[in-house]
Amino acid sequence: MRTSIATVSLSGSLTEKLTAAARAGFDGVEIFENDLLASPLTPEEIRARCADLGLGIDLYQPMRDIEAVPAAEFARNLRRARHKFELMERLGADTVLVCSSVSPLAVDDDALAAEQLSALADLAQDFGVRVAYEALAWGRHVSTYDHAWHLVESADHPALGTCLDSFHILSRGSDPKPIEDIPGEKIFFLQLADAPLLGMDVLQWSRHHRCFPGQGGFDVAGLVKHVLRTGYDGPLSLEVFNDVFRQAEAGPTAVDARRSLLILQEEAGIEALPAPAALTGVAFAELVTHDAEPVVALLAGLGFARTARHRGKPVELWEQGEARVLVNTGPAARRDGTTLAAIGLESPDPAAAARRAEALLAPVLPRRRAAEDAPLDAVAAPDGTELFLCATDRPELPNWRADFEDIPHTAATPAPLGSCRVDHVALTQPWHHFDEAVLFHRGVLGLDAQESVDVADPYGLLRSRAVTNADGSVRFPLTVGAAPGDDTAHARHIALATDDVVAAARRLTEAGGRPLRIPANYYDDLAARLEFADGELETYRDLGILYDRDAHGVFRHCYTHTVGRVFFELVQRDGGYQGYGAANAPVRLAAQHAVR
Amino acid sequence: MRTSIATVSLSGSLTEKLTAAARAGFDGVEIFENDLLASPLTPEEIRARCADLGLGIDLYQPMRDIEAVPAAEFARNLRRARHKFELMERLGADTVLVCSSVSPLAVDDDALAAEQLSALADLAQDFGVRVAYEALAWGRHVSTYDHAWHLVESADHPALGTCLDSFHILSRGSDPKPIEDIPGEKIFFLQLADAPLLGMDVLQWSRHHRCFPGQGGFDVAGLVKHVLRTGYDGPLSLEVFNDVFRQAEAGPTAVDARRSLLILQEEAGIEALPAPAALTGVAFAELVTHDAEPVVALLAGLGFARTARHRGKPVELWEQGEARVLVNTGPAARRDGTTLAAIGLESPDPAAAARRAEALLAPVLPRRRAAEDAPLDAVAAPDGTELFLCATDRPELPNWRADFEDIPHTAATPAPLGSCRVDHVALTQPWHHFDEAVLFHRGVLGLDAQESVDVADPYGLLRSRAVTNADGSVRFPLTVGAAPGDDTAHARHIALATDDVVAAARRLTEAGGRPLRIPANYYDDLAARLEFADGELETYRDLGILYDRDAHGVFRHCYTHTVGRVFFELVQRDGGYQGYGAANAPVRLAAQHAVR
Repeated sequence: MRTSIATVSLSGSLTEKLTAAARAGFDGVEIFENDLLASPLTPEEIRARCADLGLGIDLYQPMRDIEAVPAAEFARNLRRARHKFELMERLGADTVLVCSSVSPLAVDDDALAAEQLSALADLAQDFGVRVAYEALAWGRHVSTYDHAWHLVESADHPALGTCLDSFHILSRGSDPKPIEDIPGEKIFFLQLADAPLLGMDVLQWSRHHRCFPGQGGFDVAGLVKHVLRTGYDGPLSLEVFNDVFRQAEAGPTAVDARRSLLILQEEAGIEALPAPAALTGVAFAELVTHDAEPVVALLAGLGFARTARHRGKPVELWEQGEARVLVNTGPAARRDGTTLAAIGLESPDPAAAARRAEALLAPVLPRRRAAEDAPLDAVAAPDGTELFLCATDRPELPNWRADFEDIPHTAATPAPLGSCRVDHVALTQPWHHFDEAVLFHRGVLGLDAQESVDVADPYGLLRSRAVTNADGSVRFPLTVGAAPGDDTAHARHIALATDDVVAAARRLTEAGGRPLRIPANYYDDLAARLEFADGELETYRDLGILYDRDAHGVFRHCYTHTVGRVFFELVQRDGGYQGYGAANAPVRLAAQHAVR
Repeated sequence: MRTSIATVSLSGSLTEKLTAAARAGFDGVEIFENDLLASPLTPEEIRARCADLGLGIDLYQPMRDIEAVPAAEFARNLRRARHKFELMERLGADTVLVCSSVSPLAVDDDALAAEQLSALADLAQDFGVRVAYEALAWGRHVSTYDHAWHLVESADHPALGTCLDSFHILSRGSDPKPIEDIPGEKIFFLQLADAPLLGMDVLQWSRHHRCFPGQGGFDVAGLVKHVLRTGYDGPLSLEVFNDVFRQAEAGPTAVDARRSLLILQEEAGIEALPAPAALTGVAFAELVTHDAEPVVALLAGLGFARTARHRGKPVELWEQGEARVLVNTGPAARRDGTTLAAIGLESPDPAAAARRAEALLAPVLPRRRAAEDAPLDAVAAPDGTELFLCATDRPELPNWRADFEDIPHTAATPAPLGSCRVDHVALTQPWHHFDEAVLFHRGVLGLDAQESVDVADPYGLLRSRAVTNADGSVRFPLTVGAAPGDDTAHARHIALATDDVVAAARRLTEAGGRPLRIPANYYDDLAARLEFADGELETYRDLGILYDRDAHGVFRHCYTHTVGRVFFELVQRDGGYQGYGAANAPVRLAAQHAVR
């Protein structure tokens, strides 16, 4: 189906918005009136710019406070409408959105409303314009889609149809099923927006908190299915008012927007995408650094052994059990110290996973490799993290491990402590791109998003939401700070699952590591809330081990110091504990700030 | 009365919070449990730190989910409470806040709740602790202050009283008058917070949007009056959860907090402050610049004449009618170009106005002046703007004008265009300090705050709120951007009132000035919405004049280009128009971005 986006959903000048929409692959735009008013381009120039960019102008919007008013007022409204229809002629736009009136002059008189909408449609028809009438959720007398449709049906005018908007319908809790009773050809336009489920004034909710489908709590795909059953074949168009998008760069927002529509179309059965290949684990995490020494010392203290080096690049492989960390000192190393730059993801079909990612607008990474290297599929996540799709130790597929040559075991290598694997990788996200990241990981990688939690950092709230696969072998808590610029909040970390966190923490200490110190007051509070075996709490206190419980089990975890913008966590999950110790995060964050 | 602040209201480590509270002059603090848990200081060290800073620990908080539970659960709760009472002994805190239960285990049984609260108080008494029981607005069975008081009254225990919290009372719309029926000695604590009037879930409202008294929509002073009539003589304590304060620096937030309590005490009749001296006009605006040439060219184009220079500093006075602009090229000039750094305010009693400002914690500015200069009173606003309190041309008082010597009139000086005066000075505010700025201008300068409006900038919403005096001779629209770092949003401007904006704009153009170009589309929209005399719109379009109407009258205005971080506006108010052309601001902001 044709995809479109309202210019109000993107930031910047009208020119920037159009360019971003076109680059993201949209077929058309809704021109928001205020964007046109503020543009130095004439309507003819805007029309030409859209044509050059391959964009149709699918809607001009909005026209407000037209119907159900006294005759003199309606005459003024028609005069205003004539001006706008003339403008639309210059613009080459043939559909106008008319929102149900919020004017104090409007009366509760359906017959008058239908009559005046019909008169408006008469005038519109003279200009080749169609009027799409929409119920605002806070309209004065018309606030539901069925009421708006009832007026359109009564007016019975060929140039008058209805516009459906998922926000206005779902925010009021209206049942979308009866949409199917509207003839498809009378649905002139379909606007889509999602929103988080907030209990707040609907006007403020609409103006500030809408988001792209799949990023909120509404069943937008379900609504689209009802609309499609009517035979509607117009555009799927995004109209999103969002305070964050207003500030973010238009280009990435437009890509995020279009990705959400692609995923929506898949969910609604409109378009097929390459199927997601269920991820089965983390093959490796890659650290990029100018100075490997501090991070290598930390890895050794954690029990990792240097087992191999890349045949052609300055990359070393460190292993412990199933946990693998690459240390890359190549030219990608950035000035701001050690960073977590890439993750290898085990996939049953790496090439198919990459095809899906590409179809969902993830940039495919250039394969800077020598002729003899294994052909690895890789894409970039919205935050720039490189995601390598791997098939470790599967002889029938290219294997990244084959690019590494083994380093002989040395006596200095510490003995590993039982099993060890990557439990989760915590990926802090850039300030503006949290919802985009969640949708990317869900839609592109097929992960499930958990509940969002707020975590109190001493210098501002953090929002965190984990995306995971079904068996928990891939877990990424995504975290975003309340404001840009806090390095501690923005450090990423690799959590290593161990069967015995106490032994692992002890080994780290004995190897000269510096586990993060946790205040004694924290342990006094644990003692107040829970009962422990003799000496148990003292052990935790000595080693800086934090403790949490959920309905399933127990979580014990501790942290290393931070190297550059990376640190490690040691975790022990028992009894099916599902979380990440969010209750302990304020104490951990305060402790990290204290050592900076 | 004693003033106190909850540590949760401030950002940073516990140490930073305590230091900020003490520096702002608070007598005590409420220690929020999570701040203690995250602190590396022992309770004894915290006690000593508070003593060193002169702070009492007026409350330890909160204890949750205690009452109205099955016996086994209550036994666990008492065990937990015993740990906390031991902690409070170490801390030297003698009052604990107990919030009404939100636990699913709690039953709706007032007799059981009272019995268990009494048992808790028994235990507390052994440790010399008083229990202050408070109804959370979202408590499971106890959510109103009168219900909480009813339980306390039934329990009838000397170590059990109630805690009143203005947010929990006013957010539910409870009538605060019956507070007067509670004996003052049974009100163990009073927590104060204001909040904007938002229609949203009360828990989210409370956790993210509280603000200091006078910054929201509640009648907090009215509530305090009711409490005082009971004989309550405990602290007035601020407990504010606010996402912005969490990110802002603790020091300024604590000053903002204490200023709000001082103003509240004045409103509630508790403490007298030096009376506000009603401002009567703008004496001057002072621009500071490294390079005077561009701004001087702009002033000349606007019709200003250079009339005087300071006797001892590189400061020139430019005048037109009653509008005066100082151009300062002295050492205060900053690298980032021309800024609006100071404002002279006409006051009937400058010394009294300065005394009030000082009492309300405004820094009094050092008087860097020569012996012969007039002794000017000056204070700093929260944003750093210097506010000079002036008595221009009042022989009985020191006159800043006397420090300037006249420059002879030259033929090159353009003739002024009828009357001219400063209509308003638009003061963009730093990101975190919007509510603080509004309260400062209201409380310290005695201005009235108008409604807050949102303005769409192409790169993010701006929030704007004007503070004015009664006759409109002092008007400061305060504006804040949605995110830091946008220079256009942060430029300040001086609006000059003229009787004939068309003539003034024409003269500016003829003098080679470059009025801000407004898109033709804007004028097409005006033509659609309103009717104009022949040629009127064309004139506006040619000169870049914007047009607005309100219930009172008409507003026409245009803008100069921006020099450094300053621009000018020419305005003509007719018929008592009250606003600032907010409806036109998106077009103006887009035009300003376009010429950058």
